[in-house]
Amino acid sequence: MTALPPQVMIRMKRDGERLPHAAIRAFIAGVTDGTIPDYQAAAMLMAIFFRGLDAEELTAWADAMLHSGDVLDLSSIARAKIDKHSTGGVGDKISLPLAPAVAACGVAVPMVSGRGLGHTGGTLDKLESIPGFRVDLSVDDFRAQVDRVGACLIGQTDRIAPADRKLYALRDVTATVESIPLIASSIMSKKLAEGIDGLVLDVKVGRGAFMKDAARARELARTMLAIGRGAGKRVTAVLTDMDQPIGRAVGHSVEVEETIDVLRGGGPPDTRELTIALGAEMLHLAGIDAGRERIAQALDDGRALAKFRDIVVAQGGDPRVCDDPRAVLPFGDEVALGPHRPGVITGIDAEKIGMGVLVLGGGRRRKEDRVDHGVGFVLLKKVGDRVGPGERIGTIYCRAPGPPPAAISLLATAFEIGDEPPAPEPLIHEVIRA
Amino acid sequence: MTALPPQVMIRMKRDGERLPHAAIRAFIAGVTDGTIPDYQAAAMLMAIFFRGLDAEELTAWADAMLHSGDVLDLSSIARAKIDKHSTGGVGDKISLPLAPAVAACGVAVPMVSGRGLGHTGGTLDKLESIPGFRVDLSVDDFRAQVDRVGACLIGQTDRIAPADRKLYALRDVTATVESIPLIASSIMSKKLAEGIDGLVLDVKVGRGAFMKDAARARELARTMLAIGRGAGKRVTAVLTDMDQPIGRAVGHSVEVEETIDVLRGGGPPDTRELTIALGAEMLHLAGIDAGRERIAQALDDGRALAKFRDIVVAQGGDPRVCDDPRAVLPFGDEVALGPHRPGVITGIDAEKIGMGVLVLGGGRRRKEDRVDHGVGFVLLKKVGDRVGPGERIGTIYCRAPGPPPAAISLLATAFEIGDEPPAPEPLIHEVIRA
Repeated sequence: MTALPPQVMIRMKRDGERLPHAAIRAFIAGVTDGTIPDYQAAAMLMAIFFRGLDAEELTAWADAMLHSGDVLDLSSIARAKIDKHSTGGVGDKISLPLAPAVAACGVAVPMVSGRGLGHTGGTLDKLESIPGFRVDLSVDDFRAQVDRVGACLIGQTDRIAPADRKLYALRDVTATVESIPLIASSIMSKKLAEGIDGLVLDVKVGRGAFMKDAARARELARTMLAIGRGAGKRVTAVLTDMDQPIGRAVGHSVEVEETIDVLRGGGPPDTRELTIALGAEMLHLAGIDAGRERIAQALDDGRALAKFRDIVVAQGGDPRVCDDPRAVLPFGDEVALGPHRPGVITGIDAEKIGMGVLVLGGGRRRKEDRVDHGVGFVLLKKVGDRVGPGERIGTIYCRAPGPPPAAISLLATAFEIGDEPPAPEPLIHEVIRA
Repeated sequence: MTALPPQVMIRMKRDGERLPHAAIRAFIAGVTDGTIPDYQAAAMLMAIFFRGLDAEELTAWADAMLHSGDVLDLSSIARAKIDKHSTGGVGDKISLPLAPAVAACGVAVPMVSGRGLGHTGGTLDKLESIPGFRVDLSVDDFRAQVDRVGACLIGQTDRIAPADRKLYALRDVTATVESIPLIASSIMSKKLAEGIDGLVLDVKVGRGAFMKDAARARELARTMLAIGRGAGKRVTAVLTDMDQPIGRAVGHSVEVEETIDVLRGGGPPDTRELTIALGAEMLHLAGIDAGRERIAQALDDGRALAKFRDIVVAQGGDPRVCDDPRAVLPFGDEVALGPHRPGVITGIDAEKIGMGVLVLGGGRRRKEDRVDHGVGFVLLKKVGDRVGPGERIGTIYCRAPGPPPAAISLLATAFEIGDEPPAPEPLIHEVIRA
C-alpha cells in the first residue's frame, strides 16, 4: 500500500480515527529517516496528546519505534532475562542492589539504564562514582557479561530506538511529554529493544514522581502492560510511593554507599523492601517462586554483595568499594542541616530534595552538563520521625566554599514539620500482573 | 516582562489556560522572525485546534498577526472605507460587480483579494482574464486609486500579515486548517491590515463551502465579529447559501462575462441578489440607508458599469470588456453537456463543479500552478429547473482535444436529477450585525 501523506495521518488522529498499522510504521520510519519533518511530527504528537492511542495503535507505535534501530539478541543466554525499569524517583538507587541480588538468584539481568536529568538521578551516573567503572560496553561485551556474571549495567546506545530519541527531544520542546501513550511507548520501545523475556516496571506515584496521582500512574502501568502483551513479553508493574525520597541518600557516592549497606543486609528499610519486592517480581517472571525470601537471603548471606563485586570488577571499577565505600568514592565536605523548628516530620518534598542536590552540582539542568559525584544529601530523618531542637535532619555533602544558599533553602524547606505524625503511607501501592 | 519559553506557552494552551496577551505577541513575533521553530508553532496550532482561543486571546492573536507586517494607512481618504470578504464559494464572482456598485454609491472600497486554490476560484485570477488588467499595484497607487476612482482590487503583498502566511502554510501540512479561531484570525488579520473602517463578511454555508453546516458557519461568523469588535472595526456577517454554485458561470472569463451582465442590470437572479444584499450591508456600515435600493439603482442605471470601466482603465485593463466581453476575453471551445437522465434538478454539488473546472485547467492544485482563463463551465440549469431529453444542462469551455473525461464526469455527476423539485433554499440564511 502507498503510505498516506503525513497530514492525512495527522488529520485521522486529530479526528479520533484509528491509525492503521501501516500508517504508524510509515510515520515512525519517516521520523527516523527525517523524511517527515519535525513540524509534522510535532503536530502528530500534540494530536496524540489529545486523542491518545488505543491498544492496537500502541502496540504498532511501540513496535515501530523498537524496530527503528538495533534490537539486541540475547537468545544465546539460556536463563530467563529480566530487567526492571523505574519511571524515576529521588534517591532511587534500587537498580544498584537489585541487579546483583536478582542475578545471585539465578536470573540474567541485562540492564540498559539512563542518566539523570532535572531533579532525578540516573543509574549510570551513580555507578560512575565508582572509580574506573565503565558503562559504555559494546553489545558483545554486554552479552558476554550477562551470560558469565549474570548482570550488566550499561547505557543506551545511539542505535537503540533512534525514533524514540528524536521524538523524545521533540516532545520536550513542544509540551507533549505528559502523554501516557507516548510515555509508555517511549519506555517500552527502549526496554523491548534489549532482547529481554520479562520486565518489572516500578511506576512511581506521588509528588516526587512524574505521575502525581495513583489513577494516572495506574493508567500508565496498564498502558505499558498492554504494549508488553502486544510484544509477547511478560511484564509486571508495581506502583510504589514517591512522596518522600527512597532511603536516605540522594546523590551519587552517597547512593552507592547506601547500596553497599543494603547489599550487606542492612540499609534503610524502604530501600531494602523495594529491592526485595521488585526482585521477587523479577524472579516470579522468571518462573522462580518464594522470591521475597530468596532475595532477602541473597542480601543477608553476602551473595548479592559478591555478585555486585563481580559486576564492578567486570566493568572495570574498583572492587574495594564493596569493603570501604568511603575510602574509594569521592565525597565532598560534610555540612549539617538542622530543622527550621522541632516537631514531627509530616512530609518530605522529594522534588525539592532532588532540586537541592542539583543545585549542589549533583545533577544536570541540560543533557550536556557534568555531574559532581561527591556532592549529595543524606536524610537523617524521614516522615514520621521526631526531630528535637539542635538535632540534625540531614547531612549535606558539598564543595568549598560550602553549600549555595539556594541548595540549603531547597533542602531545608523540603522538610515539613508538624506536631502530630501523619498516617503512614504504604511503600508498595499495588502490583499489576499481566 | 520576560517572554515565556515557547514550550511553556504551548503547555498553557494545551492545558486550557488563557494565554496572556504578551505571550501571544511574543509567539507571533517569534513565528514571524523565525526564532520560534516550525515544530513549536505546529504544536501550538494543534493545541489551539483542540482548545480554541477565547475572545481576549483571539483579539490578541489577530492583532499580533495584523501587526506582524505592514498596515495600510488609508486615513487620507475621507470617505468610509468598507471591504467585503467571502469565505470562498464556487462561482463566487460577487466582488467584481460589488466593488464598483458600492463605489458608485459613494463608499470607498479598498479590496485586497486572493487567488484561487483547489475547487474555489480567486478574484485576482478572474480579473486577470481581462487583457492588461494589473493587480500588483504599489500601496501608493492603490491608495490613490481608491481615493480617485472609489475602488481598487489588488493582491496581498508579502508584507501584509507575514505571520499569517507562515502559519497558513504550516496549517496546510499539519492538519490544523479546520480550526475556527485560526480561520477567523487568519482572515481578519489580513483584512484589518487594509486600513478599512468596516467589513462585510460573506460566510458561505453548504456542501460547496468550507463550512458545511450552519452552526459552524455561524460560529465562524461570530468569531470574526468578535475580532472586529476587539479591533474597533464595524463588521457584519452574512451567512449565504453555497449548496449550488453562485449564478451560472464558473471559471474566469465566463465569470467576468456574468459580471458584465449583472452590471448591466441583468445576470442570474442569485448573483444580482447577493450583490445587492452584500452591497446594502456595506452601505449600512458606511452609514448610508436604503442600501438595497441604491445598489439596485446603480446596477440598473449604468453607474456601476461605468465605475467598473473606470477601475479597469485605472488598472490597465481593456475597457472594451464592458461593451463586448466575448470580443475581449479568452474563451475556449464550447462543448455541450447533457443530463444523465431527464427530470428536475434536485441538487448541484458545487464542489464537483469547482473540481471539474480545475481539471479543465481553470484552477490550481498547488500555489505555483498557472490557470487557463479561457476554460470554465456555464450552468444552463440550476436547482429546481426541469431538464428534458436532449436538452443541455451546461456548456463546457475547454481546450483541444476536448474536455478530459474526468472533467466531464465531475461536471455531469454534479447534477442530481429527480422527479420532484426540492423545497427552495433561501439564498441569504442570516445577517449578523455586531
